Amino acid sequence: MATQTEDFLGITDYKVVGSSPVRHDGVDKVTGRAIYGTDLNLPDMLFAKVLRSPHAHARVKSIDTSKAEALPGVKAIVTGADLVESAEDEMADLGEEIVRIKDLTAAVLAHEKVLYHGYPVAAVAASNIHIAEEALDLITVDYEVLPHVLDVREAMKDGAPLVHEDQKTKSLGEQTDKVSNISSHFRTELGDIKQGFEDADIIVEREFNTEMVHQGYIEPQNATAHWNADGVITVWCSNQGAFGVRDQLAKILAVPVSKIKVIPLEIGGGFGGKIKAYLEPIAAVLSKKTGHPVKMIMTRTEVLQATGPTSGSWVRVKMGATHEGKLVAAECELVYESGAFAGSPVGAGARNMLVPYDIPNAVVDGYDVTVNKPSTSAYRAPGTTNAVFAAEVVVDELAEKLNMDPIDFRLRNSAKEGTRRADGPLNKRIGHVECLEAVKASEHYNSKLEGKNVGRGVASGFWGNGGGVSSASASVNADGTINLVEGSTDIGGTRTSIAMQMAEVLGISVEDIRPQVGDTDSVGYTGVTGGSRTTFATGWAAYKCAQDIKEQMSARAAIMWEISEDDIEFDEAVFQSKSDPSKSITFKEMAGKLDSTGGPVMGRATVKPSGAGGAFAIVLVDVEVDEETGKVEILRASIFQDVGKAIYPPYVEGQMQGGVAQGIGWALNEEYVYDENGVLRNSSLLDYRMPTCLDLPMIETHIIEVPNPGHPYGVRGVGEVPICPPPAAVASAIYRAVGVRIDDLPMSPGRVLESMWSENGAAK
Amino acid sequence: MATQTEDFLGITDYKVVGSSPVRHDGVDKVTGRAIYGTDLNLPDMLFAKVLRSPHAHARVKSIDTSKAEALPGVKAIVTGADLVESAEDEMADLGEEIVRIKDLTAAVLAHEKVLYHGYPVAAVAASNIHIAEEALDLITVDYEVLPHVLDVREAMKDGAPLVHEDQKTKSLGEQTDKVSNISSHFRTELGDIKQGFEDADIIVEREFNTEMVHQGYIEPQNATAHWNADGVITVWCSNQGAFGVRDQLAKILAVPVSKIKVIPLEIGGGFGGKIKAYLEPIAAVLSKKTGHPVKMIMTRTEVLQATGPTSGSWVRVKMGATHEGKLVAAECELVYESGAFAGSPVGAGARNMLVPYDIPNAVVDGYDVTVNKPSTSAYRAPGTTNAVFAAEVVVDELAEKLNMDPIDFRLRNSAKEGTRRADGPLNKRIGHVECLEAVKASEHYNSKLEGKNVGRGVASGFWGNGGGVSSASASVNADGTINLVEGSTDIGGTRTSIAMQMAEVLGISVEDIRPQVGDTDSVGYTGVTGGSRTTFATGWAAYKCAQDIKEQMSARAAIMWEISEDDIEFDEAVFQSKSDPSKSITFKEMAGKLDSTGGPVMGRATVKPSGAGGAFAIVLVDVEVDEETGKVEILRASIFQDVGKAIYPPYVEGQMQGGVAQGIGWALNEEYVYDENGVLRNSSLLDYRMPTCLDLPMIETHIIEVPNPGHPYGVRGVGEVPICPPPAAVASAIYRAVGVRIDDLPMSPGRVLESMWSENGAAK
Repeated sequence: MATQTEDFLGITDYKVVGSSPVRHDGVDKVTGRAIYGTDLNLPDMLFAKVLRSPHAHARVKSIDTSKAEALPGVKAIVTGADLVESAEDEMADLGEEIVRIKDLTAAVLAHEKVLYHGYPVAAVAASNIHIAEEALDLITVDYEVLPHVLDVREAMKDGAPLVHEDQKTKSLGEQTDKVSNISSHFRTELGDIKQGFEDADIIVEREFNTEMVHQGYIEPQNATAHWNADGVITVWCSNQGAFGVRDQLAKILAVPVSKIKVIPLEIGGGFGGKIKAYLEPIAAVLSKKTGHPVKMIMTRTEVLQATGPTSGSWVRVKMGATHEGKLVAAECELVYESGAFAGSPVGAGARNMLVPYDIPNAVVDGYDVTVNKPSTSAYRAPGTTNAVFAAEVVVDELAEKLNMDPIDFRLRNSAKEGTRRADGPLNKRIGHVECLEAVKASEHYNSKLEGKNVGRGVASGFWGNGGGVSSASASVNADGTINLVEGSTDIGGTRTSIAMQMAEVLGISVEDIRPQVGDTDSVGYTGVTGGSRTTFATGWAAYKCAQDIKEQMSARAAIMWEISEDDIEFDEAVFQSKSDPSKSITFKEMAGKLDSTGGPVMGRATVKPSGAGGAFAIVLVDVEVDEETGKVEILRASIFQDVGKAIYPPYVEGQMQGGVAQGIGWALNEEYVYDENGVLRNSSLLDYRMPTCLDLPMIETHIIEVPNPGHPYGVRGVGEVPICPPPAAVASAIYRAVGVRIDDLPMSPGRVLESMWSENGAAK
Repeated sequence: MATQTEDFLGITDYKVVGSSPVRHDGVDKVTGRAIYGTDLNLPDMLFAKVLRSPHAHARVKSIDTSKAEALPGVKAIVTGADLVESAEDEMADLGEEIVRIKDLTAAVLAHEKVLYHGYPVAAVAASNIHIAEEALDLITVDYEVLPHVLDVREAMKDGAPLVHEDQKTKSLGEQTDKVSNISSHFRTELGDIKQGFEDADIIVEREFNTEMVHQGYIEPQNATAHWNADGVITVWCSNQGAFGVRDQLAKILAVPVSKIKVIPLEIGGGFGGKIKAYLEPIAAVLSKKTGHPVKMIMTRTEVLQATGPTSGSWVRVKMGATHEGKLVAAECELVYESGAFAGSPVGAGARNMLVPYDIPNAVVDGYDVTVNKPSTSAYRAPGTTNAVFAAEVVVDELAEKLNMDPIDFRLRNSAKEGTRRADGPLNKRIGHVECLEAVKASEHYNSKLEGKNVGRGVASGFWGNGGGVSSASASVNADGTINLVEGSTDIGGTRTSIAMQMAEVLGISVEDIRPQVGDTDSVGYTGVTGGSRTTFATGWAAYKCAQDIKEQMSARAAIMWEISEDDIEFDEAVFQSKSDPSKSITFKEMAGKLDSTGGPVMGRATVKPSGAGGAFAIVLVDVEVDEETGKVEILRASIFQDVGKAIYPPYVEGQMQGGVAQGIGWALNEEYVYDENGVLRNSSLLDYRMPTCLDLPMIETHIIEVPNPGHPYGVRGVGEVPICPPPAAVASAIYRAVGVRIDDLPMSPGRVLESMWSENGAAK
């Protein structure tokens, strides 16, 4: 459905962009040759393991490592104090810096307190992993167990156990003196909310609860570090951004970035959960102590206990509309768990949740609340799925109460270019209307759904997408091929989607480009692979780098023909003299002439786009509810998404399908289950229930292309928005199937049954 | 003695150039952390060994590998036929290409004939190196032994055994039909040689013999290759140029360069001997056959038998001078062994040997002759030491016969800017006179040499130095440091000498630059580290890359200050507005502002200098000859060398000392000893006698700086010329000590004794 491209860029005949080549890393990955973190093997390498807290909240009174140190094969043990000592050792005079270092290192290894079950307390490096594990049992930690708090609304109350005794609330932009688990409270306002609700003929208000969920990447966290005698630290890891790891390490270890080289290995999924450095600083300090490279790999249990899942939340949404079906007011309250340290993605949830609609009066309040759970990290459209779930269920109920088709109701209220977002800015060219129209015209939406306990639900979602900094360099080979070095971790085929944008400029095939992900010493700064920014921004860097090459090659043709550079044009992979068209040479031929016209050609480019184009997705699901067990079966699922321009369509589809699959998992099954002691009870993939292919139908993808005018090829990000709509779409489908609106995730069989059995049709 | 810099460049106050920092790879190398080829360990790696010919010349009638294949643990065996088959497999239609492929592969593994003792015949890949070695013994080769020829003058004769039955002589530029071991004969002529000798009052004519000698690098050749299922070949090796290996492999394996990635590991010496790919193509084809990475390491015996030493030679020099001490004629004949394949460095010897002098009439004839010895490779100032030995001994004798001081005689005849070289071109600014004057003024030259059988000798030498292609890219870190990627294998500290040239431009310290040698996918084409070109050309690329960075940073300052780029100047590491000097910012500060002025900055540059500046060295040695054993003791040695500009003085001195040490080894002890069957009898470092530190005094270095006007900092190459003068200087010193002129190398104890005992004072 690539219909709108011409309107924006006037380009209709891309040669490479939009095609479906074999990805460059494909063979390596299917044959098992690709090198992941666990494949790394260095001479004299040690292995290290982390001792973790059995308590949700406790004071660490003492740590006795003497027995562990005496175990043959143990080479070094570090605690939080060693991290601070190492930092002091690196910086002659830390001064006030020491406060920051202490805070930073406390998140890596406990200083005075442990803040959740699985909190890292100490680490042992040994000659093999078995000795390291054995040594953990020999470390004695004297804990004073403290009261803990897990529920986000309980945590907000005065008198709740404090995760941090010194955390003061920042309220509406002002730093207060109030000590609280609420690290911040913010508000956005548009129009006159009071008047809005007065104008409304119908109002719906609901409260929603969601649990902490994990990204569920296949590959556990791992890191290998070598702190060399000259102070240079080399780190090999599977992370979403090598430069991000470098930045974090520089701060935690108190060394300059130029002393750190991070070598990105292949990554087995991240979804936002592989941005923070958990093991890297520990491995580095153990290496500093021992002089050996130190390798660390988490178990799945450690991954679930102690990496960064996304926030559980409580959300309240109240919306009002007129009889004519016009949304006039929205009031939202978002309370998000940040886990043990401040910094939930509640801000993104608040910004994005109302963007699909043109609502003149809106207030959104957001609260970031610390609880005794792992510190949250990004997860695909961070913070937005929770909020969209709440908003879209309310939108669905309004449409129902107005007797309007849910798509027509959304079309009636859709945001467009020029309408104002609830959080302030005016919309640029966006594609929500095009997506809604595509749903309305689709076979799926117009198909009949028959049978008992079946229902169809639909929901919209928005994600703003990231811009950020990216770099690329490239060199031209004499055979007309190009070696491209770019800085973005390749999670979902971005080596190829980036190379395609370079190939398009130069009129060569993408197979003629050999892309590689550079280490931090080999390419310019490049932000993390996240925020759906990689194909957008790093692809732009490759595009710009190709321009640099094109200009230099053009200058070489001018040298060869002894004419002015201005007299040369480049079109369809051919350099040609404007004044004498008999002078023409292909890009590939010209590549063979570089040696005789001045030597090789290298290109380089960096970009920092001021803003990316936001993207919409609409998900349509048909469900069947088993009235005896409460199990929800997904009968059919379709996603309609505005991708701007699909550079590499099969991988765009893969992102859309993956996001929907994760959204369905979140909707139906996934949740962190803590017991009354704050102990995580389901820290394995048997007990933490992610959907498998048996749980899902083939997800049907509809690519809508409303090019982003802020990108050379019109790219918007594609990776994140598809996770946002599924929970609301599934909830609305369940309602259509069995008549109950479930406001809490996951809508697991037990909860569905409870809802169906309860009088008011809603289980809490 | 850095006296001349100001005259040329007007720069007297370099901040970084000329300083002596700790080299960037220093700690890695002294702590054993640096990764050399043998340190590499890949998952599922196989090990391979080569079966070599026991004969100097034989026809290979058949190879039976069946028993070896049956040995448990043997994974694959390849012969020359497999290399051709692999190439045919890669190229659908080889056509005429097949002839070239056959020739190329025959040098890697025998096709129909073996051409020297140690010639590679087959290779076995096995699960470990012991099985691979065992399997070699199970391969049966049926040889028909052929007559062989070792002596270069015998090989020239009609009726000599032919190394190649189809090799036709190229004579004076014309391809003839004459089948011969002489692959080519060339001549350079200047003036009127007949008239020249008629004008001469005194004529000296001598014939000289030198034996094949080896570079003697510490690290044996090694290579690991992985031919991936997608056709991409990755090669790890310790070679003087990763791109050179890529080029060779592309030709031998018949695959495009863009399918090959060569990763340079650290190198334990090369001196020209690590340019050719011996093991790499074998490892690659074994990997293709097995699907595994394949690692190969030579033993020292294999290194001596079958890598590329430099030519043995026969040289005749006849020179004439007037009573006034003016050289008027030179006639030289150079006959060089090329080993088994054409391509000795006789051309370089012919070009360089007379360059120190202004001789109006000169003829030089050169012959490239194949013999049944290993194919020669480059060795420090390739081909020039043999020729300089001959020329300088004759010059010494002329001076003696004219009763002139040998330095005065050379000053009288020295080449200068504007004089014509015997091989044609006019001299640019050169430093021979400055070197001679430095010798004359030196304490060493003016010191008294007392005792029995002691003598002092002096000789000049010239090497043209290489230019060639180099590339560099770099990125600026936010802390004002720079990551530099350059393409030159670092043998002698060039990471640092290259980084220094970048640091000088930007006014930062060399410690603020982190240089790394890129693989062939990560940086633009860069020629081999050889020809004394690396600090010259790759340093220039780094200089130019720094200019690219400086310009972009300047543009960013313009953005920040909202002024024109033209209004900004950069001096002493500070960007400043010309119109408003209050606007100024250091390079480091500006690096911290890049994120807010458009994102990171990367630089890139490639260079292809049209010609490098040639360099002169003069070596002065004092010897004592033991009249009972003939052993020559080097009492004192000094070298005076025009380096252009010493970027990194301690490493310039290291090159000078290393070259003199190798020249003394060549002069006194080193030689390949073949028996009557053409079997190499001294293929170990016990029997192939290289000088140790016990054999040498501390070599005194005198750096003369006559800047090369063809380089931004005035650099000339420094690595090669110091090896040229020692043999002649030692020979002249021996003559002064004991009255015999020895015209054959090495001047080993036996040969010295023989010369002293023979009636005419010269042993043949």
